[in-house]
Amino acid sequence: MRIAFIGLGAMGLPIARNLIKAGHELHAWNRNPDRARTLEPDGARVADSIAQAVQAVEIVCTMVADDAALADVVWDGPDRAGVLQTLAPDGVHVSLSTISTDLSTRLARAHADAAQHFVAAPVFGRPDAAANATLTVVAAGPAAAIERCRPVLEPIGQALCVVGDDPPMANVVKLGGNFLIATMIEALGEAFALMRKSGVAPATFLDVVNSNLFRSPVYGNYGRLIDGGTFDPPGFRLRLGLKDARLVLAAAERVETPMPLASLVRDQLLSGVALGRGDLDWSAVSVLAAERAGVK
Amino acid sequence: MRIAFIGLGAMGLPIARNLIKAGHELHAWNRNPDRARTLEPDGARVADSIAQAVQAVEIVCTMVADDAALADVVWDGPDRAGVLQTLAPDGVHVSLSTISTDLSTRLARAHADAAQHFVAAPVFGRPDAAANATLTVVAAGPAAAIERCRPVLEPIGQALCVVGDDPPMANVVKLGGNFLIATMIEALGEAFALMRKSGVAPATFLDVVNSNLFRSPVYGNYGRLIDGGTFDPPGFRLRLGLKDARLVLAAAERVETPMPLASLVRDQLLSGVALGRGDLDWSAVSVLAAERAGVK
Amino acid sequence: MRIAFIGLGAMGLPIARNLIKAGHELHAWNRNPDRARTLEPDGARVADSIAQAVQAVEIVCTMVADDAALADVVWDGPDRAGVLQTLAPDGVHVSLSTISTDLSTRLARAHADAAQHFVAAPVFGRPDAAANATLTVVAAGPAAAIERCRPVLEPIGQALCVVGDDPPMANVVKLGGNFLIATMIEALGEAFALMRKSGVAPATFLDVVNSNLFRSPVYGNYGRLIDGGTFDPPGFRLRLGLKDARLVLAAAERVETPMPLASLVRDQLLSGVALGRGDLDWSAVSVLAAERAGVK
Amino acid sequence: MRIAFIGLGAMGLPIARNLIKAGHELHAWNRNPDRARTLEPDGARVADSIAQAVQAVEIVCTMVADDAALADVVWDGPDRAGVLQTLAPDGVHVSLSTISTDLSTRLARAHADAAQHFVAAPVFGRPDAAANATLTVVAAGPAAAIERCRPVLEPIGQALCVVGDDPPMANVVKLGGNFLIATMIEALGEAFALMRKSGVAPATFLDVVNSNLFRSPVYGNYGRLIDGGTFDPPGFRLRLGLKDARLVLAAAERVETPMPLASLVRDQLLSGVALGRGDLDWSAVSVLAAERAGVK
Repeated sequence: MRIAFIGLGAMGLPIARNLIKAGHELHAWNRNPDRARTLEPDGARVADSIAQAVQAVEIVCTMVADDAALADVVWDGPDRAGVLQTLAPDGVHVSLSTISTDLSTRLARAHADAAQHFVAAPVFGRPDAAANATLTVVAAGPAAAIERCRPVLEPIGQALCVVGDDPPMANVVKLGGNFLIATMIEALGEAFALMRKSGVAPATFLDVVNSNLFRSPVYGNYGRLIDGGTFDPPGFRLRLGLKDARLVLAAAERVETPMPLASLVRDQLLSGVALGRGDLDWSAVSVLAAERAGVK
Repeated sequence: MRIAFIGLGAMGLPIARNLIKAGHELHAWNRNPDRARTLEPDGARVADSIAQAVQAVEIVCTMVADDAALADVVWDGPDRAGVLQTLAPDGVHVSLSTISTDLSTRLARAHADAAQHFVAAPVFGRPDAAANATLTVVAAGPAAAIERCRPVLEPIGQALCVVGDDPPMANVVKLGGNFLIATMIEALGEAFALMRKSGVAPATFLDVVNSNLFRSPVYGNYGRLIDGGTFDPPGFRLRLGLKDARLVLAAAERVETPMPLASLVRDQLLSGVALGRGDLDWSAVSVLAAERAGVK
Repeated sequence: MRIAFIGLGAMGLPIARNLIKAGHELHAWNRNPDRARTLEPDGARVADSIAQAVQAVEIVCTMVADDAALADVVWDGPDRAGVLQTLAPDGVHVSLSTISTDLSTRLARAHADAAQHFVAAPVFGRPDAAANATLTVVAAGPAAAIERCRPVLEPIGQALCVVGDDPPMANVVKLGGNFLIATMIEALGEAFALMRKSGVAPATFLDVVNSNLFRSPVYGNYGRLIDGGTFDPPGFRLRLGLKDARLVLAAAERVETPMPLASLVRDQLLSGVALGRGDLDWSAVSVLAAERAGVK
Repeated sequence: MRIAFIGLGAMGLPIARNLIKAGHELHAWNRNPDRARTLEPDGARVADSIAQAVQAVEIVCTMVADDAALADVVWDGPDRAGVLQTLAPDGVHVSLSTISTDLSTRLARAHADAAQHFVAAPVFGRPDAAANATLTVVAAGPAAAIERCRPVLEPIGQALCVVGDDPPMANVVKLGGNFLIATMIEALGEAFALMRKSGVAPATFLDVVNSNLFRSPVYGNYGRLIDGGTFDPPGFRLRLGLKDARLVLAAAERVETPMPLASLVRDQLLSGVALGRGDLDWSAVSVLAAERAGVK
């Protein structure tokens, strides 16, 4: 299939590579074209503009940092045409980014108005999972559009979960999942602080509860990072974790749902940024729990 | 081995039964003697008093509801002798209850003063795990004392985790584990409220995140209870969950460790009790998250 | 002085009336022109468009509901010119609304780019204080511009507090003040719930603490509203209180400042909206504290 | 009147002095007798034991640090008789300390069982208010007993507020008042951090909101302490503030009332102790809000 791919960051690049491997003709565009060119040896055609990438494709995938970045490539800028104007009628925009439910709703409307289709398909997984095609892809959108996207969504992950026919449903599932992970990290941070001050090694505690109770790779992985203080290089930057906390609160406010745990976690992440840890792994939020307790 | 067992509630009874099965001569005492007598067909000797149960045994196990109940059987009452006075020198008191780190510290001291030994060995698991001998036993105390207790601690669970030589270390690990579970329940409650108000079925959300991300039986089990609203009969009563939240905060205050998540969870559990849900399963705390959001 | 006044809601109308009383020639515009016409007997000239109101005035005051409403009148719409385009060079835009520090910053820049001046001058006080000209006006902006606005800002309140030369400084002071009030309301709600369940009449408690300790009209007024359950008609709508809580959190996030109390208060206000109390007085947020405690 | 006074700390000493000034014959006892002797020049009779102080008096006042200290002087110790045993029948025990509602309830019962009377009369005010007899005294207990105590309670403060006939009602009013103050301190801390990072001097903000809105000496006094960082010498130690936060949460838990603001404030105070600020004024809890925001 002929597809366009916009946004070749830490996640986008390996996903795009897997799409080429799956046999697609991939037209790539990235704000920084040098980054796009690293995909040429894999067979990507690097476009000079969004318009050039998107014209004549059936599906355009976007994977960018946040709402602003996505709005920027979708709507026309002062000196360039965006996805919305250049995608052919009946074309599908597959948004892989973690964005707000509000933007997802607006994109669904805008693409429908342009006789195009919009599928939200945010992914769970870090860059290594993107490289190994072991992402979990959460998709929502009109059933027919999702069916057309299967050849794109299936090769990039180990699981494709369709959660509804309205795009923001996928975004809220993604945000809800990240909320659960953020809560686990904060909870581990607090529990480890308690253990340290009680003379119990966090690794001992983690071993007891995760081996016997939770048996969850998420607790295992984050528990090891927090215990070891291994926050650099980041798997997922704390400042992006803050962004997601803000997004889940915004999604919840839209539907009038208070989430006090999410508020608490957001405040800790914000403090992490204020204290200069925004570019560490988001599990570095746990440092605050230790500091607050006077753990040396 | 000749042992005494005090406290034959929902957890104590099946544990005592497994100890008899393991070949021990078990002398049972329970506040309500009728309950003790149900163990006679299994081979238990039912004692008329704590003194009668404890005299001439090497190890006495206690499994009672809370700090007050344990203090009550350990120290002498107005009309009866307690464990402390009647246990022979060099005897071991194994406390299986979930108690405060403060009481655990005081018991360690009191038994040492009486030339006896104290081992804290709280357990993770519900009554069915007690019956199936699949509990996780977390033990702390003097190494030699723990070794002597192995024939008692190993047959009742699937895992015996020794976490230190000071008894309260086991209690803090137990409380920390329960804190993590309570946090997961509250987090699921908030996430489910968000999903419901966003048009996503909680079961769909749970399926995505637990099958692909967390892969944890704890999320799976509690997620199903919360989604189904299946809070009765309780696996673990909300009012006991509140007790444990209070204990983890007390343990944390003793070592000067603020735990804002634990405070938040405690407040929700307290509200659960105030709203008449104290005798439901503690996952019923999630109802509050839905109510606060106006979910019908 | 010849001035324009845009936005004649519950606050704008009495403020505009006081400006006329002070001798200004006031050109009024309101989205709903019927509302504007009620000012004609006072001597206002009702304009058919923003352009007509703003042309040839030296100062334009705006008093609207929120960021969106203000942006709407400032920038051009599809079929009408906004304040920015129609205000003469060297004209001053005085924004009386409670808006975000972000919008205030953008307005300062936009007006400067248009060789105009921007003064943020949000007010403390309810509609009766607007009518009595007892508002507290908090102003920030270039000193010369503020001086020129004194004839406008002084007649509408009892105090004009200049807090800095950068407009968002006034907005953050206003938001910080509302945050303190919201916290007092929530605190009173929690304290009253405790008193009720302890058998102490809230009025007795309020009398002790406010007469002897705080001696604050804010505690006095809100305490009486909460104790009496007098939330309708609203002095300040709960849903606007939620807006302000959101704005203070946004202002704080911009400068990387976690405010856990503000988060907590926001969540309670959001729950108030979810439970159908958005159009009651914001002190109705206290009902939640009582409900959570099972107070009948 | 012949009265006994037990506990001559920072608050007890000046109160006792005012009672002597009021013409009472005061028999003083203090754990550290040297401290008691400083009252001799004022006319106090220093007793060698609680029994000696309490025998033959009509009213005994106690003013000690906490629940444990009060229980210690009321009930018999291993080598000395307590107030309960030595107070004559029909005598009144007036407890001025800030204690738990639980202990207050138990004392009411114990004194009634001994045919004595118990009045809870905790006070608002710092040591200087005790010296100037400007305390606010909050009393609860049987009406007849309170009447008999008026000659004792009136000279020590500027206001005597009787809030009910059950002693813990006075304690819960005192704890509720301290909760409101603690919340104000935390709120000021957060607001000041926001102001600092927004370029607004806290004093400017305080001036705007307190001069015009709150007009409360509590905001004024604490605002100045926090802005100036003047936490030493302490007016009221942070570690005692933590104790009171714990007591209000305990009082609320007894009557099944969640108080999330109180939980939040408790956690901040606990962190203050963990970070070595326990002996500073409790307004030093505000330092955390600044640190968390990275304020230098």
